[in-house]
Amino acid sequence: MTLPDNCVMVIFGASGDLTHRKLIPALYSLTADGALPKQFAVVGFARKPKTDESFRAELRESVSEHARVKPVDTAAWEAFASRVHYCQGDYGKPDDYARLEAMLKDIDAQHGTGGNRLFYVATPPEVYHAITEQLGLSGMARAENGRWVRIIIEKPFGHDLNSARELNTHVHRYFAEDQIFRIDHYLGKETVQNILVFRFANGIFEPIWNRRYVDSVQITVAEEIGIEGRGAYYESAGVIRDIVQNHLLQLLALTAMEPPAEFEADAVRNEKVKVLKAIRVDDSEGDGTVRGQYGPGKVAGQLVPGYLQEEGVALDSTTETWLAMKFLVDNWRWAGVPWYVRSGKRMPKRVTEIAIQFKMPPLMLFSKATAKAIEPNALVLNIQPDEGISLKFGSKAPGSGETIQPVKMDFTYSSAFDKAAPDAYERLLLDCILGDSTLFTRADEVEAQWEIINPIIDGWKAQGGAAIELYRAGKPGPKEGDDFIRKDKRDWRNLWS
Amino acid sequence: MTLPDNCVMVIFGASGDLTHRKLIPALYSLTADGALPKQFAVVGFARKPKTDESFRAELRESVSEHARVKPVDTAAWEAFASRVHYCQGDYGKPDDYARLEAMLKDIDAQHGTGGNRLFYVATPPEVYHAITEQLGLSGMARAENGRWVRIIIEKPFGHDLNSARELNTHVHRYFAEDQIFRIDHYLGKETVQNILVFRFANGIFEPIWNRRYVDSVQITVAEEIGIEGRGAYYESAGVIRDIVQNHLLQLLALTAMEPPAEFEADAVRNEKVKVLKAIRVDDSEGDGTVRGQYGPGKVAGQLVPGYLQEEGVALDSTTETWLAMKFLVDNWRWAGVPWYVRSGKRMPKRVTEIAIQFKMPPLMLFSKATAKAIEPNALVLNIQPDEGISLKFGSKAPGSGETIQPVKMDFTYSSAFDKAAPDAYERLLLDCILGDSTLFTRADEVEAQWEIINPIIDGWKAQGGAAIELYRAGKPGPKEGDDFIRKDKRDWRNLWS
Repeated sequence: MTLPDNCVMVIFGASGDLTHRKLIPALYSLTADGALPKQFAVVGFARKPKTDESFRAELRESVSEHARVKPVDTAAWEAFASRVHYCQGDYGKPDDYARLEAMLKDIDAQHGTGGNRLFYVATPPEVYHAITEQLGLSGMARAENGRWVRIIIEKPFGHDLNSARELNTHVHRYFAEDQIFRIDHYLGKETVQNILVFRFANGIFEPIWNRRYVDSVQITVAEEIGIEGRGAYYESAGVIRDIVQNHLLQLLALTAMEPPAEFEADAVRNEKVKVLKAIRVDDSEGDGTVRGQYGPGKVAGQLVPGYLQEEGVALDSTTETWLAMKFLVDNWRWAGVPWYVRSGKRMPKRVTEIAIQFKMPPLMLFSKATAKAIEPNALVLNIQPDEGISLKFGSKAPGSGETIQPVKMDFTYSSAFDKAAPDAYERLLLDCILGDSTLFTRADEVEAQWEIINPIIDGWKAQGGAAIELYRAGKPGPKEGDDFIRKDKRDWRNLWS
Repeated sequence: MTLPDNCVMVIFGASGDLTHRKLIPALYSLTADGALPKQFAVVGFARKPKTDESFRAELRESVSEHARVKPVDTAAWEAFASRVHYCQGDYGKPDDYARLEAMLKDIDAQHGTGGNRLFYVATPPEVYHAITEQLGLSGMARAENGRWVRIIIEKPFGHDLNSARELNTHVHRYFAEDQIFRIDHYLGKETVQNILVFRFANGIFEPIWNRRYVDSVQITVAEEIGIEGRGAYYESAGVIRDIVQNHLLQLLALTAMEPPAEFEADAVRNEKVKVLKAIRVDDSEGDGTVRGQYGPGKVAGQLVPGYLQEEGVALDSTTETWLAMKFLVDNWRWAGVPWYVRSGKRMPKRVTEIAIQFKMPPLMLFSKATAKAIEPNALVLNIQPDEGISLKFGSKAPGSGETIQPVKMDFTYSSAFDKAAPDAYERLLLDCILGDSTLFTRADEVEAQWEIINPIIDGWKAQGGAAIELYRAGKPGPKEGDDFIRKDKRDWRNLWS
């Protein structure tokens, strides 16, 4: 195993939610596992005035609540916290970056972190430009004398194709592509990485992983939560930017991509880009999408407000909180196979899965009555929350006659491995420190994703805001979503009962 | 569902073990389920003098002990028993058959069984000829006026190819092939029937069910018991006649056969015969077999005698109680794929399974260290005792890096269906009453099985009794059996720990 280089990680947006709920808990858990470099330090950078001590104290609470490794060991925490510092500053102010740089040099001297830098941009996207520019102008972006400098940029990466391109161009002014780690935390999930292992470390799935045997694919990303107070953000995003443009297209790409020539960052990402470029929305009827928005309803027994009642949402908002689409992948492997995707907020429960629906056997050997009961095989990759894989197939039911019943073979992570899966951020932070960008999104990849999404959004705009269908919170989406797939004589998988 | 015709079933060998342990308990359970014809009666025929009452009394005990449907309901038993009769007779004596015929006519008149006859030959094979001949000569074998006559013949069907052919010729003198039901109770097992359902009611297994994707197949029929006092029979049989010639070749045929054109008795059996004719022993090195015999040892904590110490066994016997062979199936689908089979008595535990071992993925994408840990996919059809199906595949182990670990997807009958599977004899008796011979062995099929086995036995004889390797009772067979498969750089599946 490669040992990670000593380094300092600077978190821009250190007062934010992500820092408290994900980044610091992940770093603490990695420390507790002994996975971080021997010499490692953290600098939180944000506008609010704080001392090292007050910053550490608030992080201590976050870690207690959110770290995977529990309970928090006081000695381990103290050792970790003694290397956590705070730098108050303005994201656009050169002086503050000069102070930051001085601080980093002090830390290098004090902790022996060797001059390697990992900048984590965990701020709202409005300041991405300023931060990267200041890092560039101050010289901190430059990797010299064998030291490395890397930058992790959070999502959203751009608001549409133009802004994503513009952001890439801007960041490339100061950082080389191999320094840039665009994060999509879905790729840090074990079950997402397992898509590749499942497909390419086994001999028996790949032969049937194509248009000859696959009838259709369904990808569902359902959230039980609403917009969690982020009304202003959500109004400008909708499901299409929040989930589809990044997470969902990544799931699709990993499921559909060709085997890479080797398991190496660029080889894998080349294949992902190839398949992303082959994806298009099937707009042979209408615009190929159904948009929904939740009204008031009940989730887990609790009355919840509708989207229009949420704070920060316009009273006449037509932002979609639910979206269904049919993608096609125009390549040799997938031509003609529909990829039905749906994602929504305030669904009956939280579930992310990829379901490969296979064709029926070519010939019905069994009696007509029996044949009616035969359902096509389905292979389901459960991404969350019940991580695992299941295969539906037909089996003879006990007793006389040839009654055939669908049954399932199951594999669940939790029963197969006693080790808990690390949080996605743990995996990704460590990969970045190790310099492995396989699970990060490359510039051309993020642009390819926008190239798929942009025309859809433009189409909606051209219609003067596409139709939006109401659904009750806690229900699996609008009726029109069911009609959408039934036109094709198929049905959404019932994941709710 | 087809209703079974009213009929009388005559059991020859009514005092025997099979009648008491299997046939009558199966008939009682079928009655309790309401599956038998409305008008149904049983006549036991054997040499020992018994009254209807004494016969019924002894059967009552067998049913209590062996019936699937428990506890035995007194009213249901009384109703069933009132239709059970006994006919004392000699298997070769025409007068006794005349009495039997008179009795059957009485029963028709009394119970309204309509003249349909099911003769079950459950005697030792020495009297098969006499019984079929007497049934023929007495006219009872003839189906006339819309009434049917069927005969079930127990195994062993012949002792070698010649005697099997001779027996077929003899039985065909009196019965047409569609009247003859050669029983192999393995075919009545749910899991054995499910081989066909699994293969042909699902779209995703058949594409990989061939030489392109399958590395090898292993079939194991392991028994924990010894020869159970049947020394004389076993001395003349050995594993090759007791298990391989019938059960094991049937498992192989069902696994290897092409899809039939329809799910109908002759279509299915045509395909089985086709594949049986393509099977040969791989004798490219030696005679392609390893024979073993158990010595004294411990099974389930109990000291047990060796085969040579069993009653009825010659002190210098070289009969095999364990056998391993490598078959090849010389057809388009299977050419070059080895089928390793093994069967033995006094093994560490009772288990019958078919394991399809797939080839490794064509390319090792993951790192060398990772690749080492990758095991090929295996699909296992568990026939008994833990009926089910499992699929071994490689999954990403939680944590950083690409550690791949073999895991299993499982399906078990017991958890998928709350209904207990009927006993194999129940299924087969009912099929015979319904006139469905799909799960019975056709004349050409049994001969094809002998055509595979006969040259092997002849080869052993030509060597003046082939080598026999000792293994300790309770162990998985002789060391030479392991060497046998290791020559091919493969290993037997470890089913014992």
